[in-house]
Amino acid sequence: MLKAPDGRVVVTTDLLLEGRHFRRDWSSGYDIGRKAAAQNLSDVVAMGADPTGIVVGLGLPADAAAAWLDDLTDGFRDECDLVGASVAGGDIARCDLVVIGVTALGDLGGREPVTRSGARPGDVVAVAGRLGHAAAGLALLSAGRTGPAELVEAHRRPRPPYACGPRAAELGATAMLDVSDGLLQDLGHLATAGGVGLALVPEAFTIPYPLREAARLLGADPLEWMLSGGEDHALAATFPEGVRLPPPWTVIGRVVAGEGVRVPGRAPTAGGWDHFRK
Amino acid sequence: MLKAPDGRVVVTTDLLLEGRHFRRDWSSGYDIGRKAAAQNLSDVVAMGADPTGIVVGLGLPADAAAAWLDDLTDGFRDECDLVGASVAGGDIARCDLVVIGVTALGDLGGREPVTRSGARPGDVVAVAGRLGHAAAGLALLSAGRTGPAELVEAHRRPRPPYACGPRAAELGATAMLDVSDGLLQDLGHLATAGGVGLALVPEAFTIPYPLREAARLLGADPLEWMLSGGEDHALAATFPEGVRLPPPWTVIGRVVAGEGVRVPGRAPTAGGWDHFRK
Repeated sequence: MLKAPDGRVVVTTDLLLEGRHFRRDWSSGYDIGRKAAAQNLSDVVAMGADPTGIVVGLGLPADAAAAWLDDLTDGFRDECDLVGASVAGGDIARCDLVVIGVTALGDLGGREPVTRSGARPGDVVAVAGRLGHAAAGLALLSAGRTGPAELVEAHRRPRPPYACGPRAAELGATAMLDVSDGLLQDLGHLATAGGVGLALVPEAFTIPYPLREAARLLGADPLEWMLSGGEDHALAATFPEGVRLPPPWTVIGRVVAGEGVRVPGRAPTAGGWDHFRK
Repeated sequence: MLKAPDGRVVVTTDLLLEGRHFRRDWSSGYDIGRKAAAQNLSDVVAMGADPTGIVVGLGLPADAAAAWLDDLTDGFRDECDLVGASVAGGDIARCDLVVIGVTALGDLGGREPVTRSGARPGDVVAVAGRLGHAAAGLALLSAGRTGPAELVEAHRRPRPPYACGPRAAELGATAMLDVSDGLLQDLGHLATAGGVGLALVPEAFTIPYPLREAARLLGADPLEWMLSGGEDHALAATFPEGVRLPPPWTVIGRVVAGEGVRVPGRAPTAGGWDHFRK
């Protein structure tokens, strides 16, 4: 049982599959638990709500040791502790691969929920949190490298800017989501849901030093990681023109009439379709 | 977003795996959706709450047709409609087998939640809903039979006695759960959680005609299905002595000092351990 003082509860769910979303040889049970909880707690704050708890459905192979399960549940709990949420229950079934279904609940604290559909032409587009770090970390691991450590660590364990979500709702965010699939793809969802276009300004992106270092090592484009890399769970939101956005929010573009996401020098990105989204 | 007028929300989650919990050649997508929703909605009413909604995490193989997915989601929706709940969201990922994670939420309507741990010596033990039907149906299908139809249908689609859960809370139920793994095993959870024993009276069980018929066809013991068969999602509860229980509640035994579940003529059943239960 969880508290729902607002009288409304937001709820979000994600399914993580071994091999597809994580590898047990690249991430510890603890890190996988942290990450699985983080991506759902991040979805809750992206609606402007305060996470209250998670429940977990687990499919576990016979070869998963009890200690690994303990590590996983420690990871769930420690990530939840960051936002004052609890692990409220779960279910375990035997399965050939590790399956982790996490559902997170949140309380709106009297605020209206921020949806994906509220962006209006003239709004500014802003992001808070890291971009491209997890993707760079995965590219490094895939190339057999173990550093820069900050990026490999970012792949194993995201650090969503939790406090920025409810604060964005208070600042009047018109639409918001967390960047799980990649900035351009996720902003495409905002564009489609709002029936608007988004025009980004590449110069607004500051490329952090570890990303430049990893790009040099792998011969990659660091901006590409920031625009297309997922799993950092930054927040992306639109705000009315003229709003004063405190750090770490960075304005990266503007909402325009039209559709899709436009970045000068790149082909437009179309919005995606989510089976369960209205 | 779901309503939580009570200011508290109960939440329950289950993971269903193809091959282990259902077979696509034995059940339609629609039936699987009904069943997956039912077992979670049943968990909610077993806490004395009114279900408000579900969210669904789906793992789907490439060979799952769009029509099958539509049938599945129709099943979720129709089962939710039975209790006035909604399908509030979901997530889909590609997976080698069908994985269905359902989380259900419920509102307590001012009632205290009924837990698994409140049974006290002297309480009566009672059940509401069908027992052994789904197990008999599965046994029939496994033996290549398609009837009695009522039992095969019971395997495909449970009919939990939803209204009995909140009503039991109002009647003062001291402990309750839904029978998902089998009556003796699930009552074992109540016994363990409450630190008590449960003494059942086999004569209290009326064996329905279709069960007797299936037992004759398969040379099986119908009482065994009722005591050990799961997935009908009957409710089992304990109530203070002297309470007047309306139909369909049937008293089947009594809470005693001690431990485990005792049935004359059978070895005692020890209580199980749930990793996520406190």
